[in-house]
Amino acid sequence: MNTQQLVQEIQKKKSFLCIGLDVDLNKIPEHLLKEEDPIFAFNKAIIDSTHHLCVAYKPNMAFYEACGIKGWRALKKTIDYLNANHPEIFTIADAKRGDIGNTSSMYAKAFLEDLAFDSITVAPYMGKDSVEPFLSFENKHAILLALTSNEGAFDFQTKKVDNKELYKQVLETSKTWKNSENLMYVVGATKAEYFAEIRQIIPDSFLLVPGVGAQGGNLQDVCKYGMNENVGLLVNSSRGIIYASDSADFAQTAAQKAKELQLQMETILNN
Amino acid sequence: MNTQQLVQEIQKKKSFLCIGLDVDLNKIPEHLLKEEDPIFAFNKAIIDSTHHLCVAYKPNMAFYEACGIKGWRALKKTIDYLNANHPEIFTIADAKRGDIGNTSSMYAKAFLEDLAFDSITVAPYMGKDSVEPFLSFENKHAILLALTSNEGAFDFQTKKVDNKELYKQVLETSKTWKNSENLMYVVGATKAEYFAEIRQIIPDSFLLVPGVGAQGGNLQDVCKYGMNENVGLLVNSSRGIIYASDSADFAQTAAQKAKELQLQMETILNN
Repeated sequence: MNTQQLVQEIQKKKSFLCIGLDVDLNKIPEHLLKEEDPIFAFNKAIIDSTHHLCVAYKPNMAFYEACGIKGWRALKKTIDYLNANHPEIFTIADAKRGDIGNTSSMYAKAFLEDLAFDSITVAPYMGKDSVEPFLSFENKHAILLALTSNEGAFDFQTKKVDNKELYKQVLETSKTWKNSENLMYVVGATKAEYFAEIRQIIPDSFLLVPGVGAQGGNLQDVCKYGMNENVGLLVNSSRGIIYASDSADFAQTAAQKAKELQLQMETILNN
Repeated sequence: MNTQQLVQEIQKKKSFLCIGLDVDLNKIPEHLLKEEDPIFAFNKAIIDSTHHLCVAYKPNMAFYEACGIKGWRALKKTIDYLNANHPEIFTIADAKRGDIGNTSSMYAKAFLEDLAFDSITVAPYMGKDSVEPFLSFENKHAILLALTSNEGAFDFQTKKVDNKELYKQVLETSKTWKNSENLMYVVGATKAEYFAEIRQIIPDSFLLVPGVGAQGGNLQDVCKYGMNENVGLLVNSSRGIIYASDSADFAQTAAQKAKELQLQMETILNN
């Protein structure tokens, strides 16, 4: 999917919501454990009840890998289901990969080609040749970690490198990489005040924003400082939506929570 | 495995060789493709012919993920085979993971508990709470990226942060984390001259050293500057060993290449 299509979808649905599919067998409703594939059953129910309210889904690879082969099977079924039934949805493999060139190429093949995700999150520590393999697919995207939403973001990301914070160096430097038009960035919602400065460096790029909800970020602040002419934001919520209820009505409750966020987004988009 | 056991194994085998199992179906001998599980058949043959020459194996996750469910099955068979037949071998999941705390916990569970690797490579960009979950397992290790062997290492890792290169900040800062005695570090062989300075910061830690062989690093230089009283080095070779031949004799040729490196290591250890 190209960014133009993504922007159209946002305008159509009045939503820039991304729903994180962090599926934990210890947290999903108990009745689903009887299903042949409880993880996929959970995802399918969430997708069926929320796809009209969001523009993106983001399965978090760790949760699938923690279930071994069953997890990978459920992941494949989930992305196949999305691609077959909702090609208008932007899909994000939240994998935070990054390695030397030949290895990053294998990860890129796995997630962007074989599993056919639209995008994958990538860590910048190993630099240019660890990221460029993810940028070489037409209409696919690497979403590079810039400023994350966790406490550890202050260990290195905000440290000054040549008088500029490391995350800003990541933004500046990555702009010069091959096919950098396929880059998006992770910027945590917990630091809304940073968005204005970030927009000076990358005015046009899409930002994937975790940290609204469970991690305490504020949607209005993020939009005030982070939104651009093409919206330019995908705001993620995972636990706050998918685990809003652990009863038989979990999918409906998830839809209610998604609707609440979508309505806030609609108000913001209308202003 | 604890580091004392690893050191004993190094002394016994006169080797600090780690063999990288970067298994690519396009590169393994053609006759193996007829096997039910070609990846595992390849790994088993390599392990059977080289286990007396090395102290560690390092499957690179990207190569397994690129094969989807089949890849994960082959990975599981490989680590199970190693743990069942060669418990004296130190196993490394080369995964370069790292995410917010609850997600890193899931990765740690997947690799250190379920697959029962002795260690996993971890990226430092997201800081303390993204790494600590990997350190909470007794006799298990997180191998943190410090200075990698690729060109992109110069994009951020060697940039000055408060007058000290980022990779040195990673070394310094990570020493203060909980259970930091379970930390090892990735330091590329292509920059042997850096090892002396690195040893001033982390004199006792084990270093996993990629980049000898295919990437051009020199073993003597690495040992001259990087070795400590307990050896403190695991030198990895992947392609130079496992793809030395693509004929029926591939496992024997791999053993010859491993033997060449082991003999160099024996000479160094004897001096």
